[in-house]
Amino acid sequence: MISPQTTSAAITDPGRAAQVLERFRQPIEESLQRALSDRGVPLYEMLRYHLGLDGGSPVQGKALRPTLCLLVCQALGGDWTKALPAAASIELVHNFSLIHDDIQDEDRERRHRPTIWSKWGVPQAINAGDAMFCLANLTLHDLRPLCGDALVVEVLDVLQEATREMIEGQYLDVSYENTPEISLDAYFDMIGRKTGALLRASVEIGALLAGTDATVRQRCRQFGEAIGRLFQIRDDMLGVWGESDTTGKPADSDIRRRKKSLPIVAALSYGSPEVREELLTIYAGQEVADAQIVRVLQLFADLSVRERVQVMADEAYQRAMALAGEIAFTPGGRSDLEALASFLLERDR
Amino acid sequence: MISPQTTSAAITDPGRAAQVLERFRQPIEESLQRALSDRGVPLYEMLRYHLGLDGGSPVQGKALRPTLCLLVCQALGGDWTKALPAAASIELVHNFSLIHDDIQDEDRERRHRPTIWSKWGVPQAINAGDAMFCLANLTLHDLRPLCGDALVVEVLDVLQEATREMIEGQYLDVSYENTPEISLDAYFDMIGRKTGALLRASVEIGALLAGTDATVRQRCRQFGEAIGRLFQIRDDMLGVWGESDTTGKPADSDIRRRKKSLPIVAALSYGSPEVREELLTIYAGQEVADAQIVRVLQLFADLSVRERVQVMADEAYQRAMALAGEIAFTPGGRSDLEALASFLLERDR
Repeated sequence: MISPQTTSAAITDPGRAAQVLERFRQPIEESLQRALSDRGVPLYEMLRYHLGLDGGSPVQGKALRPTLCLLVCQALGGDWTKALPAAASIELVHNFSLIHDDIQDEDRERRHRPTIWSKWGVPQAINAGDAMFCLANLTLHDLRPLCGDALVVEVLDVLQEATREMIEGQYLDVSYENTPEISLDAYFDMIGRKTGALLRASVEIGALLAGTDATVRQRCRQFGEAIGRLFQIRDDMLGVWGESDTTGKPADSDIRRRKKSLPIVAALSYGSPEVREELLTIYAGQEVADAQIVRVLQLFADLSVRERVQVMADEAYQRAMALAGEIAFTPGGRSDLEALASFLLERDR
Repeated sequence: MISPQTTSAAITDPGRAAQVLERFRQPIEESLQRALSDRGVPLYEMLRYHLGLDGGSPVQGKALRPTLCLLVCQALGGDWTKALPAAASIELVHNFSLIHDDIQDEDRERRHRPTIWSKWGVPQAINAGDAMFCLANLTLHDLRPLCGDALVVEVLDVLQEATREMIEGQYLDVSYENTPEISLDAYFDMIGRKTGALLRASVEIGALLAGTDATVRQRCRQFGEAIGRLFQIRDDMLGVWGESDTTGKPADSDIRRRKKSLPIVAALSYGSPEVREELLTIYAGQEVADAQIVRVLQLFADLSVRERVQVMADEAYQRAMALAGEIAFTPGGRSDLEALASFLLERDR
């Protein structure tokens, strides 16, 4: 068992994380290219554009979910090549949700490029997301010759249950826009569905396709949930304090669009009645002016929101490490997963 | 083999069609209720509302696709109860597409009630459609104990391939809005995907779950395609000449929103250069005024568009009947399917 203390070494090796994130990039990209191959309908052009597979500059995402799936499969002694179609399917589900999310949030940019809806309009962006979801289902077909029908059905179940939770989380996230105040519990329930479920499924499917038993699978689910919480907390931090150059999104974007992300939820939870009143008034307006953004950031600083949220990220990281310590990963695999978790704790993109 | 002539008897028996459409209503509705059962997130309320399962007035759709699936399964000597989860899944796919279609077309009413987006807003309507799609995938799980994993994967493949075509068709339909003129070939290609694919899959999955061989399955696919074409031609006729009371949509709605449905595609194909010019000018505007709708209807009458389109519907019906004649349906099952096809040819809702 790895104690939390020993993990600090991994934090200081960003090169290892980069190597881990790079390891499966090419096979994942090839699987996605295959899934999105043309059929004489320009629909697929939008999908390749979204995934950065259109021959333009390298603007792909981190492919975190499929990488995590393959890493876990490998770290449990499985053959990662057998899990590749499932990993691609997970990435397609994630990207279907991003395409629809961008419409819902009216986000005009992602990964330094116009989003699909801002380039092709809302109706076609809805179709693009639907097609991406459908291709995720179709890609599971490629598992058949590798793993057999029973495992295809198991993977479908795990992935679709997670997708269902993801959509529930998205529903809650949208509904929170019209709710003045969200409790920290409600926030963590929402991100557990919206982000946590698919990251949990990535880990669980990796374990499933490595042939592990139910006990290991259950621990892997919990490990995946902790990773999901860690990921989203850091994401919310980047949405307020991240640099536009690295995140690919406008700075302060989550304050500007009054998103109920962790910093504001935490500030409302910790602030005095006067501070809460002031924040609620700013967030109740139709638009947040630049001066108000400066004021919100000042109130966050007064309340040490960044430090408090950082503690939550650290706790999620420690929990992930403790859970990983209870799973019989190979030494190399454990080290890979630790490097990835460290990256999630410290990433700036 | 039933010759086309003998089918005219079925046309004169609307009671038979009503009985056929009613036969599986209750088990289908129960399956849908199960699929949409609550999980503490109000998301599911939207889905039950859309399907008319919210305890309000009986505003459900015809459940044509699941009924067709179960009828075909039964008519080929299969046990329809084993096909029920697949039938429910097909209906969920169809309704996911309707929810998103209503957003894309900006339709405010369906089945005499406000559409989801007009009641809950576009972002939540996107989530509702996504959830409906996801529940369609999850519902296939219920096939496992009834049919085994291999058939679950086969059904998934057939259904997802059809869903992919449906989304491609939806993409083409949206893109046609900005295309002044569509050929009849392009129109039939589009509806073959948008509507035909899922009706084809309904028939094919019914055959698959009845345990038929590849030859019968292939004929069933073609029968389903003919049914799909028949359905959509009639739908396009109702969009121009249907009564609002029975269709649940505003009268003349397809002209008002300048939809490239069959009547206008046919009129542009048959009209003189002057008539074409006039129609293209009306359809190029941002809005179609009431007087222009009257004028379009007059031009359609001058060109006998309704009669010509009726001939196309008759041809699709005859083709469906001829194909059905080549499939070894039980006598009762054949009669059911003929009654259903006759209903599709003559329906006013």
